[in-house]
Amino acid sequence: MKILFKNARLLLIEKEEIIFGDLIVTNNIITYVGESKNHQEKFDRIIDVEGNVLMPGFKNAHTHSAMTFLRSNADDLKLEDWLYNHVFPYETKLTESDVYHLSKVAFLEYLTSGVTAQFDMYYFPKAIFEASVDFGMRSVILATPTSFKESIKETKENFINLNNKHELVSFCLGFHAEYTATEAMLIELSEVANELKAPVYTHISETENEVNGCIKRHGLTPALYFDKLGLYNYGGGGFHGVHLTDEDIDVFLKHNLHLVTCPSSNTKLASGIAPIQKFINKKMNLAIGTDGPASNNCLDMFREMFLVTGLGKLKANDATAVDAIKVLKMATLGGAYAMGLHNADTLSEGKLADLIMINLKRPNMQPLNNIMKNIVYSGSKENIKLVMINGRILYEDYQFYLNEPVEDIYKKAQEITDRIKKEYKDSL
Amino acid sequence: MKILFKNARLLLIEKEEIIFGDLIVTNNIITYVGESKNHQEKFDRIIDVEGNVLMPGFKNAHTHSAMTFLRSNADDLKLEDWLYNHVFPYETKLTESDVYHLSKVAFLEYLTSGVTAQFDMYYFPKAIFEASVDFGMRSVILATPTSFKESIKETKENFINLNNKHELVSFCLGFHAEYTATEAMLIELSEVANELKAPVYTHISETENEVNGCIKRHGLTPALYFDKLGLYNYGGGGFHGVHLTDEDIDVFLKHNLHLVTCPSSNTKLASGIAPIQKFINKKMNLAIGTDGPASNNCLDMFREMFLVTGLGKLKANDATAVDAIKVLKMATLGGAYAMGLHNADTLSEGKLADLIMINLKRPNMQPLNNIMKNIVYSGSKENIKLVMINGRILYEDYQFYLNEPVEDIYKKAQEITDRIKKEYKDSL
Repeated sequence: MKILFKNARLLLIEKEEIIFGDLIVTNNIITYVGESKNHQEKFDRIIDVEGNVLMPGFKNAHTHSAMTFLRSNADDLKLEDWLYNHVFPYETKLTESDVYHLSKVAFLEYLTSGVTAQFDMYYFPKAIFEASVDFGMRSVILATPTSFKESIKETKENFINLNNKHELVSFCLGFHAEYTATEAMLIELSEVANELKAPVYTHISETENEVNGCIKRHGLTPALYFDKLGLYNYGGGGFHGVHLTDEDIDVFLKHNLHLVTCPSSNTKLASGIAPIQKFINKKMNLAIGTDGPASNNCLDMFREMFLVTGLGKLKANDATAVDAIKVLKMATLGGAYAMGLHNADTLSEGKLADLIMINLKRPNMQPLNNIMKNIVYSGSKENIKLVMINGRILYEDYQFYLNEPVEDIYKKAQEITDRIKKEYKDSL
Repeated sequence: MKILFKNARLLLIEKEEIIFGDLIVTNNIITYVGESKNHQEKFDRIIDVEGNVLMPGFKNAHTHSAMTFLRSNADDLKLEDWLYNHVFPYETKLTESDVYHLSKVAFLEYLTSGVTAQFDMYYFPKAIFEASVDFGMRSVILATPTSFKESIKETKENFINLNNKHELVSFCLGFHAEYTATEAMLIELSEVANELKAPVYTHISETENEVNGCIKRHGLTPALYFDKLGLYNYGGGGFHGVHLTDEDIDVFLKHNLHLVTCPSSNTKLASGIAPIQKFINKKMNLAIGTDGPASNNCLDMFREMFLVTGLGKLKANDATAVDAIKVLKMATLGGAYAMGLHNADTLSEGKLADLIMINLKRPNMQPLNNIMKNIVYSGSKENIKLVMINGRILYEDYQFYLNEPVEDIYKKAQEITDRIKKEYKDSL
């Protein structure tokens, strides 16, 4: 399978520049990036990009995809009330099959938002694996052990069984959070991480309450506590990091950890604003995540990008803070590195063909002044004209090209949602 | 012309409820809202809404439409630097014809975002008038006199000449801001407002600098100063209001003024966060605006709605603050009242047919839990399936239905933008 994209604006994010030219995809690999010319090969399809932008797909570096069933089910609540009374009780009703189907609703939305890979922290990793392969989504699945669900033994088995099994999926070590873990669990996980030489990821310093609770329980902030337990000896990272201290940042720098910011979720749950300009000044590795559809409630990397720069400016009380180009790098390169997808980061020959086309012929992109800044400040799902994952076009001109009808995915998700809500109600 | 929308979810925002049924538009008026039945009339078109949502169009209650030429031209700058060095010098190059063409680019984007009426504060009101009529956009044009452009005499003439001339357009008294006005100007405007018994609108307390400057010059905050000058004797309102004091709020309540919040712009320019929950508690009239495309940079009411609730929660440090349903009312009813469009507020018989269809069959709306909350938290331009203004369908399934090709609007705007940038460069 060989596809020629011709007459494109090629966004070389690593160089912060846009060049005019062509791009060729052979099977799942980018095999040509360069000037427009008369190519001699035979192509299965030739796509005239008509001056629109081709760029690396967005990497959604933190999400809980299957939580689509709780989207807009309980909003305008404080985080603890929401999590303990409106999330955990519903989640006990979930089956492996539910997670398989519910994940796909999120995958559909990722396509509409130009997301070509997702870092998915949720229960039933085998279901996420199967859903990713069947759908065609690139997924890095993150272990989610807690004191009440999923053991470290299972986590280790999943790591061994789900890695190197399919080119679209990998699996990482992690845990839900300090406040849902026991120390014994974390010590066991640290032993596994050190044995497997694997990075570890978790929710970290999302709220003030979380940080204060950890200090009360362990005398240390989460980052210092995890470091003490040896969890970061082979790297990893954390999600949110709204309330990281300077000492916590030093832990991130020491272990080259990745910080994934999730501004919509932090905003809607009033958790606070992460000091992104400070993180940039400290040269931390930064990426962006939507968080799950129960807290956000949408999975839209454009909204996240605008918030990363906008809230970063408000936090720094400085409109020059968190330049948009840095944000575009976070959403692409930064995410790829946080997820270990070093071969899906840029439009370069030999890289995986995970790319998107941005439609400049929509009013929010006109007239053309600064295209890269405009993608961050003005871009929206309406600008996603095409999404290719692993060489396969899954979305084009607002239509999905999947192995099953979209309506079937919606129908199944609604049935599951209705069933879980009924089971929950009956259990009261 | 008679159009039947059948099998719709009709969002009756004034009652905060959704009913299933049909809606009929006859010419430019809604003539039936009620249960689905076998209608006996003959229709020019029957649209099966297939369970999607019909609702009143969004009212963009503060914008500067023609500033599309400066979109993404100068970002990541402090407000004063941006305004005095990167906006005003370019604006001196604008002609009446430029404003006519540049406004249409914004109008296109309003359609993509479900905006059926705009409150447009910009120079060359006759050009905005003509653009609105030719395009089919409902516009309330706001006077923009400053000490260096547009006299109060011209403002008064425009008020007399541009009102009651076309059903799509009205004209309001206003001025740019305290810091761009002389006292003599404002006294003259106050006399005109009192003579015409007309409301007055302006930028107010957008930044701390603005408030401090006004106190230094006049010993009063902007709201108190304008009230002292008698500008609010027949009502009106203000845009931004990020730094309103309790005394300022009392002025708003005394004169029943409208406060239009513009959170994207306040975020990007690091002006601060308006205390929306406090405004709600005080029972102020609230509406939402995108501000202009030079500061925002996009014109997306979905982004604004999310920010009104999200930033409101952050400001109040309370995730239960600024409930989403209140925000949906601000974006529709609140805007209509701020703009004096009392006949374009709800889906009711006898009201103007300014309405939109929200596509629920996109992944960000699935599964269906709470539709109204989901529109605010998860909605995006991709959900705008149809836009009708004054009984005319201007946008449907991502396509525009106008009197001219969209490409011509883009081309003209790009030519103007390139010319102005060259003129500015040559003048240095």
